[in-house]
Amino acid sequence: MTADWHSLIARSPEDFASQNNILVKVRHAVTEIDAANKKVKVQDLEGGSEFWDNYDSLVVSTGAMPVVPPLPGRDLSGVFVLRSLTDALAVKEYLGRHHPKRATIVGAGSIGLEMCESFMRLGLEVDLVEKASQVMPIFDTDISESIQTYLEQQGITCHTGQGVLGMEGKNGKVAIVETEAHRIQTDLVLLSIGVKPSTELAKAAGLELGVAGAIRVDERMRTNLPDVFAAGDCITTRHLVTGEEAWIPLGDHARKQGRVAGSNVFGGQGTFRGVQGTVIVKSLDLTIGKTGLTGSEADAAGFSSLTVTLTHDAKPQYYPGYAQMTAKVTADKTTRRLVGAQIIGPLKAGVDKRLDILSVCIRAGFTVKDVEELDLAYAPPYSHAIDMPITAANLLAGKLGGDVCACDPDQGYTEKT
Amino acid sequence: MTADWHSLIARSPEDFASQNNILVKVRHAVTEIDAANKKVKVQDLEGGSEFWDNYDSLVVSTGAMPVVPPLPGRDLSGVFVLRSLTDALAVKEYLGRHHPKRATIVGAGSIGLEMCESFMRLGLEVDLVEKASQVMPIFDTDISESIQTYLEQQGITCHTGQGVLGMEGKNGKVAIVETEAHRIQTDLVLLSIGVKPSTELAKAAGLELGVAGAIRVDERMRTNLPDVFAAGDCITTRHLVTGEEAWIPLGDHARKQGRVAGSNVFGGQGTFRGVQGTVIVKSLDLTIGKTGLTGSEADAAGFSSLTVTLTHDAKPQYYPGYAQMTAKVTADKTTRRLVGAQIIGPLKAGVDKRLDILSVCIRAGFTVKDVEELDLAYAPPYSHAIDMPITAANLLAGKLGGDVCACDPDQGYTEKT
Repeated sequence: MTADWHSLIARSPEDFASQNNILVKVRHAVTEIDAANKKVKVQDLEGGSEFWDNYDSLVVSTGAMPVVPPLPGRDLSGVFVLRSLTDALAVKEYLGRHHPKRATIVGAGSIGLEMCESFMRLGLEVDLVEKASQVMPIFDTDISESIQTYLEQQGITCHTGQGVLGMEGKNGKVAIVETEAHRIQTDLVLLSIGVKPSTELAKAAGLELGVAGAIRVDERMRTNLPDVFAAGDCITTRHLVTGEEAWIPLGDHARKQGRVAGSNVFGGQGTFRGVQGTVIVKSLDLTIGKTGLTGSEADAAGFSSLTVTLTHDAKPQYYPGYAQMTAKVTADKTTRRLVGAQIIGPLKAGVDKRLDILSVCIRAGFTVKDVEELDLAYAPPYSHAIDMPITAANLLAGKLGGDVCACDPDQGYTEKT
Repeated sequence: MTADWHSLIARSPEDFASQNNILVKVRHAVTEIDAANKKVKVQDLEGGSEFWDNYDSLVVSTGAMPVVPPLPGRDLSGVFVLRSLTDALAVKEYLGRHHPKRATIVGAGSIGLEMCESFMRLGLEVDLVEKASQVMPIFDTDISESIQTYLEQQGITCHTGQGVLGMEGKNGKVAIVETEAHRIQTDLVLLSIGVKPSTELAKAAGLELGVAGAIRVDERMRTNLPDVFAAGDCITTRHLVTGEEAWIPLGDHARKQGRVAGSNVFGGQGTFRGVQGTVIVKSLDLTIGKTGLTGSEADAAGFSSLTVTLTHDAKPQYYPGYAQMTAKVTADKTTRRLVGAQIIGPLKAGVDKRLDILSVCIRAGFTVKDVEELDLAYAPPYSHAIDMPITAANLLAGKLGGDVCACDPDQGYTEKT
């Protein structure tokens, strides 16, 4: 566990001032953008006063907020969302004060699965509720089933295919989560259903919105209004595999977009061309990662998908620290290019490494053959001579009628057929 | 330690027969190739008999052998090379029989550094002798100095810039290694000076040789003679960054080349287009890796190099398992493409992951800007939001007069200037 929440704060307003000569006004809300006159209306949330401020350039980075459906019992004590550090501290305070024994997590996406870990490590019994028919719905069903099996082995009770109808309390504290199928006894509820872009201010100002209601920007983070830029979880971007506009709010994209917006405000030519849907989640000892598309997502996007599923050693079996990962790697039959990968495995299997390798391959537009010829770093402490991405490419090449036979009986992997 | 050497054997001759219907004749040496008549002369090393065998296609995979200079004392008991499993078992047998206290390793390349670990773990005092002025001579001097500092901190005595003049014995066993500067008391000597291609047979048969005297093949592993292929440590390949013919004998290349040769023997169209000099070595808790070129290698190859050196967190400092790595990343000023990376760090820093990411970037011909926009897998257990390869690209972009300012003070890195 991380010892002190203060260490989670990257920079204080004082740091901005002293390191960058940037005036940061916290507890001030912009309530209106007057783009025609290049002004913003600001409300001092502490003092209550309101004033107009001018800008030469404006960067809208209003982020995203948790989706909270109007469920009965939403306002009971012990019902939380988790978006900000403040949210986290509220959960922590409740844990310390009320010593709950059972937690229910609503939503089995990344945040939900990460919070499974946190609550399990604190000794709570955990129920995980998901409306979709599987945990981690952005993964193929078989991968999600493996994730669910792992969670259940760790003692987590999974309720998939069950929407939440509401919460009931006892003495003002949450006590029951009612799903479409069960009444779950609980002492704490975390709603991790998802997020939505915070774009009311932008919309009111006439900024054009795109997919998911996020602010539409070009590669240079420019909105439809002059001198108004936007960046972060409130904007759309391009999915570089499908070519479609996408809204994928993640901290690393936000960081890159912020740099680009900042550069362009000062006359730079920075661009952020898009994303490919790379995600990684740690839940207890399991790493869950994806980049690009699943097979069905690829087909829906107009590709003709071919997928291999394999279990592969992270390193040779004779080497200490041996572990295996399971991967599904998808190519497009027409272009023979890689279009996606899903990988799961224990922490020591280095799922993140193989995901990043395949992420770069997909970004590069590599064909299966290109991947087969990669010069990856091989020594037995780190991998087999032929590491998973290359084995997957070998198998795909075999299925595509490639030039080189895919069979390679020297241990280290098993293809699932 | 790996428990049992039998587990190191990937496949036995019996496995080849039963799994692949391949007749493997061990202890049989081919002593002559008659390419005109498509025959090979074979000597049975057990029975002593000699016979001619026909072939439709021939694959020469004679590998490489250790370089052993004609040093005085070479034949003393306790002086070893390490190439084959048999060599390793001989060392192990000697260790068990004579309980040496001090080992001297001659040659501070990959094998030398790996053997530092093995001998240190067995409790021996280790002297490491290197003729070049630095350990790991294929690295830049500053990186090599960091490696040497680490080795010395572990208790290894490094003698760089010292050629070995010979060994002296006592009662038939090695007792002294004489270098150009010292007389080192020792109980065991490992000569890990390097390897050379085993190509006498090939040369006698009229196979064209290339750089380093290795067999010259094309992308399809064809030699200059009809129906004669070659693969593995005995062949040349193409360095894909310099474009030059190269001889880089490594197990992973050999595996890929063998697949390609095997495919083409049976009418396939497989290719192996080349390598980029990726290497990784583990010595005790240090990972040492390189892909592509150093700055000076890049300049020698006609590039105009620009290099950044940085120390970067493997993951956020607040996360358990925190570690840092040091990286030098090199781009070409003219094309703005990445051409090389050198990275060192403790095992838990995941040097191999960043090396593989950069290896794929170099293979893809990515510019610094392309690397800045990668969609790598981010969550705090795995990396910062901006991982080292992207930070390095940010810094390079800044130095190249890029569009986006390189400064980003809260990200867990320090540039060395």
